[in-house]
This record gives sequence, structure tokens and C-alpha cells, in this order.
Amino acid sequence: MPSPDTSWLAESIMARRGLAKGQPGQAYAITEASQGKYHYVYGPYATPVLTVDPGAVISAETHDAFEGKITSESDKPTEILNFPFLNPQNGPIYVNGAEKGDCLAVYIKEIVPRGPQPRGTTCVMPEFGGLVATGDTALLNPALPERVKKLEVDAVTGVKWNDKITLPYEPFIGTIGTSPEIEAISSLQPDYYGGNMDLPDVGPGAVIYLPVNAPGGLLYLGDCHAAQGDGELCGVAIEHPTVTTVQVDLIKGWKFKWPRLENERVIMTIGSSRPMEDAVRIAYRELVRWMAAEYGFDEIEAYMLLTQVGKVRLGNMVDPKYTLGASIRKTLLG
Amino acid sequence: MPSPDTSWLAESIMARRGLAKGQPGQAYAITEASQGKYHYVYGPYATPVLTVDPGAVISAETHDAFEGKITSESDKPTEILNFPFLNPQNGPIYVNGAEKGDCLAVYIKEIVPRGPQPRGTTCVMPEFGGLVATGDTALLNPALPERVKKLEVDAVTGVKWNDKITLPYEPFIGTIGTSPEIEAISSLQPDYYGGNMDLPDVGPGAVIYLPVNAPGGLLYLGDCHAAQGDGELCGVAIEHPTVTTVQVDLIKGWKFKWPRLENERVIMTIGSSRPMEDAVRIAYRELVRWMAAEYGFDEIEAYMLLTQVGKVRLGNMVDPKYTLGASIRKTLLG
Amino acid sequence: MPSPDTSWLAESIMARRGLAKGQPGQAYAITEASQGKYHYVYGPYATPVLTVDPGAVISAETHDAFEGKITSESDKPTEILNFPFLNPQNGPIYVNGAEKGDCLAVYIKEIVPRGPQPRGTTCVMPEFGGLVATGDTALLNPALPERVKKLEVDAVTGVKWNDKITLPYEPFIGTIGTSPEIEAISSLQPDYYGGNMDLPDVGPGAVIYLPVNAPGGLLYLGDCHAAQGDGELCGVAIEHPTVTTVQVDLIKGWKFKWPRLENERVIMTIGSSRPMEDAVRIAYRELVRWMAAEYGFDEIEAYMLLTQVGKVRLGNMVDPKYTLGASIRKTLLG
Amino acid sequence: MPSPDTSWLAESIMARRGLAKGQPGQAYAITEASQGKYHYVYGPYATPVLTVDPGAVISAETHDAFEGKITSESDKPTEILNFPFLNPQNGPIYVNGAEKGDCLAVYIKEIVPRGPQPRGTTCVMPEFGGLVATGDTALLNPALPERVKKLEVDAVTGVKWNDKITLPYEPFIGTIGTSPEIEAISSLQPDYYGGNMDLPDVGPGAVIYLPVNAPGGLLYLGDCHAAQGDGELCGVAIEHPTVTTVQVDLIKGWKFKWPRLENERVIMTIGSSRPMEDAVRIAYRELVRWMAAEYGFDEIEAYMLLTQVGKVRLGNMVDPKYTLGASIRKTLLG
Repeated sequence: MPSPDTSWLAESIMARRGLAKGQPGQAYAITEASQGKYHYVYGPYATPVLTVDPGAVISAETHDAFEGKITSESDKPTEILNFPFLNPQNGPIYVNGAEKGDCLAVYIKEIVPRGPQPRGTTCVMPEFGGLVATGDTALLNPALPERVKKLEVDAVTGVKWNDKITLPYEPFIGTIGTSPEIEAISSLQPDYYGGNMDLPDVGPGAVIYLPVNAPGGLLYLGDCHAAQGDGELCGVAIEHPTVTTVQVDLIKGWKFKWPRLENERVIMTIGSSRPMEDAVRIAYRELVRWMAAEYGFDEIEAYMLLTQVGKVRLGNMVDPKYTLGASIRKTLLG
Repeated sequence: MPSPDTSWLAESIMARRGLAKGQPGQAYAITEASQGKYHYVYGPYATPVLTVDPGAVISAETHDAFEGKITSESDKPTEILNFPFLNPQNGPIYVNGAEKGDCLAVYIKEIVPRGPQPRGTTCVMPEFGGLVATGDTALLNPALPERVKKLEVDAVTGVKWNDKITLPYEPFIGTIGTSPEIEAISSLQPDYYGGNMDLPDVGPGAVIYLPVNAPGGLLYLGDCHAAQGDGELCGVAIEHPTVTTVQVDLIKGWKFKWPRLENERVIMTIGSSRPMEDAVRIAYRELVRWMAAEYGFDEIEAYMLLTQVGKVRLGNMVDPKYTLGASIRKTLLG
Repeated sequence: MPSPDTSWLAESIMARRGLAKGQPGQAYAITEASQGKYHYVYGPYATPVLTVDPGAVISAETHDAFEGKITSESDKPTEILNFPFLNPQNGPIYVNGAEKGDCLAVYIKEIVPRGPQPRGTTCVMPEFGGLVATGDTALLNPALPERVKKLEVDAVTGVKWNDKITLPYEPFIGTIGTSPEIEAISSLQPDYYGGNMDLPDVGPGAVIYLPVNAPGGLLYLGDCHAAQGDGELCGVAIEHPTVTTVQVDLIKGWKFKWPRLENERVIMTIGSSRPMEDAVRIAYRELVRWMAAEYGFDEIEAYMLLTQVGKVRLGNMVDPKYTLGASIRKTLLG
Repeated sequence: MPSPDTSWLAESIMARRGLAKGQPGQAYAITEASQGKYHYVYGPYATPVLTVDPGAVISAETHDAFEGKITSESDKPTEILNFPFLNPQNGPIYVNGAEKGDCLAVYIKEIVPRGPQPRGTTCVMPEFGGLVATGDTALLNPALPERVKKLEVDAVTGVKWNDKITLPYEPFIGTIGTSPEIEAISSLQPDYYGGNMDLPDVGPGAVIYLPVNAPGGLLYLGDCHAAQGDGELCGVAIEHPTVTTVQVDLIKGWKFKWPRLENERVIMTIGSSRPMEDAVRIAYRELVRWMAAEYGFDEIEAYMLLTQVGKVRLGNMVDPKYTLGASIRKTLLG
């Protein structure tokens, strides 16, 4: 995988407004050993695994969403997995100076697969997924049979689906976010603080902006995917363990409600809700307001322009809330 | 308000399966002083205010949802209220012997209004309510103006709306539930453990059955309403402080996913989700399964019978999840 | 079945504002023979079976929703039924003087079962129903098996479910409405003109008010149910053929968007949409506007009062749009 | 605008299975004059404007969605437009030999803007759009003010938004479909037969496959857009009159429920429903079934592969049903 072009970063919001000016600072590693206990909730009740200054560059050994427990295609997920102890997270990382009303900027530098092959896992489980009856869409139909697929994942040669089909390695962070102020919410859920968004745009070369709700921000991350289609249809992407490297900056006083993202081409807002139209409404309203607050549009003009050029990316349609991103090309911001 | 007829209680599930056989045990009071700090999340991270045996009868001084801060019709809720510190809860109450997979049975004996008049409050707030744009149904329309209405609430004479209209005093507990296993979730939210269901059936004379997810069950309650229509349309019922008395029993090994309720006439299951049809699906699927597991129906027969006689009650259409109850008359269970 | 008390009718909106002042006029019968071809769409392209003046009292021989084709519990609906030729309707009835912007008032006088026993039918069909995957909630789960239940229906002794369970005979009109202006829409669908609402309140003793969209109004009706629970859960109530008698009046210039209903106790508005919360929003907004236009409330006051006393009835959660009614007791209108 | 590369067409499904083998046949023009009365419903009750054999190439003078009535930025849409007489359609075109259970293949050759400048129109109207309260999402908030924007549209230089922003001319057909069997449904609605899908993929270079429900198929089309973002957010894209040229073929016995599409890169299925997740479910289930029926996958394997590589395109989030397309790259079909 070629390194993404990073020249645009010098003009990013992180570089222009971050305390560290988007410059890399001290480097840290979170190994499996130094992480110790992984976390299954996003909340303020855990002890930070690291305390860092803005600019810190952190490489974390992430587990896959199943903590590596599914090792064979004959495994039965329903027998092996123990809800709610799913989707283990690294962190929390306490960022010095971060207070409610600030913003953590997290630049995703690199995602590298790790662990023995076949290191990729996807599966179909009962009452989970976008095209089956679930705990929420609670129906009487019989479930589909369980099925596990183990896949070789390589950063260069991609994900081998079968002898005829190979998928490109297009990794991203499935779950990343800050802590709520007083809640501790399952790492299976996406929400206003980030969490299990499963949005492929949250990959190398992007900066995600997360609202700070609790002191230090308390950044969590994990659940990296080697590939994923729009919606994460059966509920399980190509899950795999990685070394994921991010650079964290702090923007004081940049207050907004929902995660924002920037890459070389676009600015994006991210909404999570049910039904799905509410997630799109959140994302687009946040984008309208962002364009009005910082790019010189009035709200109705922004609304009318997005009608012609806005793009929507479906992240997940399987988690407790659905996640979508709404974006506009930077060149169309005038 | 006449006391509800309680003779049916001797035949209730609580009486038949509870460790205390539905008999009242030791009495406790939770005053404002003994409660001290009220809680804004349902979770396992708080210290119990009481530890009791099954059978305990507990009278709690509940605050209204605004902790009494709205005292005048000229108050501005947006200036006075401090999200997420809303909907204060009494508890948690640790019930000896309660383990994951058990059920807490909570019989609601009495709700008595307390505090100086006008002790009732309802209001319209921006971005909150069933007929306005909200944080989830995120739109660009201007908000409605804020409006507060203070009302005299009396257990005998009712709720005085204006000179021409008086509402009967029909109190219930807006928010009641057990703790999640590892999550700590806002008391504004209803979910599988109960919480902010805002379902009028949860009133004097009913027994609510709550799944135990954490040791001791950890019962919370608060947010009593003097009256409420189906859906709690503007988001704020007749909120009022009370002394609420419940009797708690423990049913070992009665495991189910969502709250259940029983009164003299019906058995009911309660679902909370979005969109609203998913909440109804949850409630009805739970009722089908209950009828199949304990009342001698096969699932399809139960499904077909509920088609003819099932009743649905809309609790709230304003909270983070909508809540509905599905019920069947006991006399139709054969 | 005792006749409903009709003394309140003299004070009904139909009596106060109808051209016939709510008085019965000429009587008509629509037999199977005089109806000839039944209809499967609500639209302006069919020839009226009757042309009447306001006040007309019409007794129609309705078919059941399956046109009587399911006669045995061993029948397979998927083999017998021929979509879209389902839910046959009597009509259309042309009401002299009715123009777009007017209102047809339809007082439901009586529903009497007819035809050989067992004349009642319910069934479970693949991809149809409230607790199964459907054509809209399109999933990969296997379907439930088909099942047909035939039942004896008697106006006095009720509906015999089995040896232990008998349901009261509580009939209503499942499908009734006027024609859209230029559309012709399946009789399986409920919408702003009425149609397949499957709302139990539309029974003897009620007056339903329907907006006129096309010249003559073009009233259709059919699909009477002997009993039905909230939501019509499996999609098929106790379907049965009847003689249904209605009295039609015309209110000039009473213009509104969605069906309204009145009985001795309440006024009700009816909304149909998806997701379900949108149907409730429609119903409640219409009720707010009605209270503001005709009962002396300002909109926010009506909104706040309905929060405390509004009632919601779930009609169907199985048709192309879900239907709910929102109501308030007349005694609470001040 | 360069002509799209059409070499792949020789391998298209239209070429392989169409009666005309994808070869262009006789050419026809539908002018404003020859069309005469445009249509506002998709149904079988109108007289065909053309009867053609498979292979016919038809150039139609389409109106914009407002039939050209909005000519100035000071116009008030609410005063000018006359619901339901909106979204005028050319057609219907009767294709000889087309019967229920067949498929019309429609290759979109070209869309050329016509009419005097500024020929493009977008606007904000009350109770219509994706970020405002509407007739379905019926709320009490005040409406946004009406606003009209007229724009110069040129096939080469694009759409001039303002002095700083120019949008590329990326035209497509907003509304296209066949007739339902017995219904006549507003041209504002998308559904299983096509209609007002507002999906940008339905542009030059694509073949859309439409199910035939009525004799002759009865093709309608209109409502071309010069540009549109995902979701058509405010409800009105860059509406403009065009000459649109399509080539129609007939595939006998290719029976499916929802529209399908093919272009050089992908195969796509299109679903329309509410809530939005149901539209995605429809599209993805149809794609799973297509892959299982014609590309050698079992259903669960297709489901798991789409989880990793499926793409979703949001067409509209403003029409009576929301429309989304689900697609997979042809190179990933193995």
C-alpha cells in the first residue's frame, strides 16, 4: 500500500487550529501487554492507559472485533462469543488540556495488519445483520445458519476471498471516539462521540474531529477492518488485528455535536441514528451548519447547494444506530 | 384516589414465583437527605443507597424530571436546565441474591404527590418533543417558542389545567429499571432494562418485571408523572415530586430480554426502539414468546390470536427510543 | 349485539353541518349482483354503482378480503390468491354535489355477518405480516409456514377461536374511503383519502369524515372485520362477508387533509405513513390543527394538552402504510 | 459532454437477451406537440403516444418538473404550482410484445438541454424537502421561506451556481418507469416499477431494466436533472427541459420485482421505500438474489461478499418513498 499523499495536511483544520499545529510530537506505543485489559464501553470510568500532549503519535496494537477468538471456519460464534464483551478497544488516552467544548483532531497515519494467517474473519450470526431479523427488528422468521469465513489479509496483495476474487486492502478504523460525559456506552454503538461508526472514510489519510465531552477527551479506538462495503451488510466486515498509528491534536473551543472528518478532497459530517433517514438528516444538518458557520454560506444557500453536490456514504446499517457521512468537495466550497 | 384492588396479587407471578412469595417484608424510606446525590445514569458504577432482601417495601422521595428547578411560568428551561444532568433518579437499590439471569419484580403500591403548589410542571423546549424537529430528526425549521405551564396537582381533585379543564390524577413512574451489566446509560433513555419508558401502565396496582443484568439488580426509579397521554407528545408530562412506594421481590432464573408487566387484567411486554414499528415488533415478539413458553400456545397460534385481540399502548414518542407496550387480557389466555 | 346509543348523533358535526343535517334519506341496497364487478383500486376511473343525494342510507353486501376464496384450513393462500386482485371493494358511490374541498360524512349504522359458516377467515402468509420479513422489510430469513384458520362468526355469540377461547363480535369496516383526484391506488393501501386503514374505531356508532378529492367523492368500502387487535399483527383479521349499512352526508367546504372520526366520546384524526412515528405525527398534528381551528386552542396549548390526555390507537402495522388514530375526549375540549 | 464509451454495450444483458439484441431500430421523436397532454400518473388508463417494436430509438422533448412555470427568482412556487399536476411525463410508449413478467431494457443514449436560459431551476418550498418538516414528517415548526434559484445550464460549460462555483453538467432521468398493472400512481412517487427515483445513476451510458406489469409495458419518462447530489436534499435538483434519447429493448420472461441497472462498471438494484433502511434492504436483497440466480453464488455467500464490497447510492430522501441503489463491480462477480 503506497503512503497516502500528505501534502494537503499543512492546510488542514488540524494544522491551522490545533495546539500542536498538526505537527507530530512524542511517539508512543500501546502494545497488547501495555494495554492489558481492553475496554467494552466508551466512558469516563476507566483509567487512562496513556496521558499525552497534543501532537502525540500513538501506535496501538488493536484486536479484531472478536478479540481473536474465531480461528476456524468450523467455529460457532454463538458458542464462542460472550455478549457484551465484544469489540475490544484500546485506550482511553487522556489528552492534556482537553475540556468539554473542545475538539480532538485525530489524523490516521497508518494501519498495518498483524498476527498469523488467516488473520481476517467475517461471519453470519443469528439475529445480527442488515438483511435478517434482529433484536430490534424482532420477527418470528427462522434464523439463517451460522457461517464463518477466514481469509488471508495482506497489506500489499489484498484480501483473498476465493480463488477467483481478491479484494483490495482498504483498511480503516471501525470504532473510534471520545468518552461521553457521564455515560459509559457499549463499544458496539456509534453515537455523537464517535464509537462503532464502521465508516470506511475513517482510514489512513483522513483527520477525524471528535467532540470532547469529558476531561482529557479520553480517546478509544479499535475494530479495524481490512475491507468493507457500504452498510457492512451482514454485520461483520473483514475483521483483523492491526498496528494502527494515529496523531492526536487538540483544537480548543471548537464545539460541535457530531464527528467531522476531513481528507484531501472533502469535508464530511457523520450522523448516527435510527431510522436511517434520521442519520442522514443529522449528517446533512451538521454540514449545512458547518458551511454556514465557517464557509460563508447562509443556511438555505448551503441547503440548496448540497442538494446538487452533496455525497452520502453509508457506513453501517447493522449497529444499534446506523451511521452515514455527508460530504462536499472542498473545491465546491467557493 | 381509592386504593387499587389488590386481591388479584395473590395470583400474580410475583406471588407464585418470588422468593418472598409476594409478601411485604421490611420497610425502608429513601428521603432526599438519605438519597443525597441523585443519579443521571443507569449503571453499575454507583454505590447502592440501600441493600435489601426480597420483599422489601421502599418509599422514595422522588424529584420531578427537572429536579424542581422550574418554578415559574416565566422560567426559560434552556437557561435553567443543564444537560445531561436531567431526570434525577433514586437508587440504586441492591437486592440480595439477584444475579444476571434473574428477574426483579416490582409492585407499585402507591404514588403520592409532595412539595409546594403549583407542584406540577410541563413545558415546550426547543428541539425536544414529538411534533418538532429534534436532535435526531434534525431539520432546518425554526423552533417553537419555549413555554412553561405550572399546575396544581392534587391526588384527590386532580390536575387543574385551566378554569374549564381538570385532568384526573393518574400517576405512574416515568423511569424505572435495573442496571445494565457494564454500560451506564442516561436516565433519559428507555431500553431493555427499563429506564425512561414513560409508559402510563407502570402505575399503582401493576407489577413490573425487570431483567437482572448486574449483581443485586440495582434498581433505580424516579420521574413520576401526575398525568400523561399516549406518546408524551411535547416530551414533558405533568412532572411532579412524589413519595413513591414499591415492593420488590426476586424471581430466580426467570430470564427474558425486555421488561414485562402484569396487572389485574392483562399481561404486557414492553419494547423500546426506533423506528416505532421496531418497538412494537419487540413488544409483540416478546409477548408471542411468553405465550408460547408459559401459556401453552405454539408461536404461530399466539401470533394469530394476538392479531385479533392484542392491545398496544404508546408510552413515549419523544425519548431516545420510543416505548410501547403490547398486552393481552388474561381471560383470553385460555 | 345491542344497537349503539345514537342520541349523541343529533349533536354530531354531521348533524350540525351536513346538507342533510344528519337525517337519513333514501335507502339503497348494493347486492353482489348489483355491484357486479368489485374494485381493487381507489380511483376516479370506475363507473359509479350508485348516485345518491346526501342523507342516503346504503346497505352493501361486502365480500371478505379474499373474495370468499379461502374456504378450508387446508387451502394454500399463495396458490389461491392472485395479487393485486385482493380486498374487493363495493362502490364507487357518487354523492351529488360533492366537490374537491368538501367532506363526506359517513355514519356507520350497522354491520351484520352473512354467508355460510365457518364464515370467518384468518391466515399467515409468506412475506406478509407485522412480525415477519416482507416485501418492504426485505430480509433473507426463511418464511413461516402458511396457516389458515376458519372460524364461526356470529353477531350474538361472537367468534369461536377454539373450545376455550371466544372473542366478542366487534365488527368494523377495514377499508373505506373516497377517490384520489387522479390516482388509482390499490385497495390494500391506506392513505389521506382513507382506504385500507384497518382501524377498529371505524365501526358501528362512529361517523368518519373523508376529504373529497374528485367529483362526487366516489365512496368505496369493503373488507369488514369481525374482530381485530391493535396492529392487525399477522396481517389478516377475522375477515368475513357482511351486509354493511352506512348513511352518507355532505359537508360543503370543510377541507382537511386526512380522515377524521367522531363517536359519542371522542374526536379522532387518522394518519397513515411509514415509519410508524410519521403516522402518529400526522394524526396528532391534524388533531392539534383541528383543536386550534374549531375548539379555541392555540396550537402550542393544544400540543401541551394532548401531551397529557391524547390517546393513540394503532390500526395496522402490516399494510403499505401503517395507520394510527389520535383522539381526545370531547369532555376535555373545554 | 463527451459521448460515453459504448463498447461494453455489446456484452450487456440487453444485447445478450433482448429481442433486438441491443441493436438500434427505428427512430422516433416525441415533440411537445406530438406528446400533447403530458401525464401526472403512471398507469394503464392513458392512451399510448407511441407504439414501437423492440429496438426503437426515441427522442423525447421533456419538460422540467414544474412544466416550465417557474421562470423568475421572484416567483412563488406555492402560488404557481398546482398539486397534483406536477412532474409531467412523456409517454406512455407501448412496446409490442411486452407482457406481464417480461422486462423492458432502456438504454439511455443522450440527454441534451433545451429551452431559453436560464433554463435550470431549483427552489425551496414549504413542507417539502429532506431537512424540513413535511406532510409525512408532520411537525409544528414554522416553515422555511420559499426561495427560487434560476441557473444557466449548458452541456459543455456546466451549471453556473454563482460567480465562484460552477457544477459539472451530469444529467440523468429523474423519473422513468413502466405502468403498474391496475394502479395509476402519481409521477411524484418512485416504486417497484420505477417512477420518480431521482437516482443519478440513471443517466447516459446506463441501461435500466424495468419489470413489465401491464401489456406493452407502457414506458413513461421525464423530469431530467442537470445535476443532483445524493438525496436530492431540498427536494428540487437542477430541473431543466431536455431532449432525451433512449433505446428500448424487450427481454422476454426476465421476471423480477424492482428496477435493475447496468453500466460499464457495475450491476445495480434499486429499492424505494420508507423508512430508508427498508429501501436499502430491498436493493440489497434483490442484488443477493440476482447474484444467486445468475452469477453462481449461494445467497449467504453473496450476502457476505456484498458486506465487503457492496456500494450504496442514495437517490432521493424527499419523495413519497426514498430510493437507493445497491451495486457491485462486475469484476468482483468472479
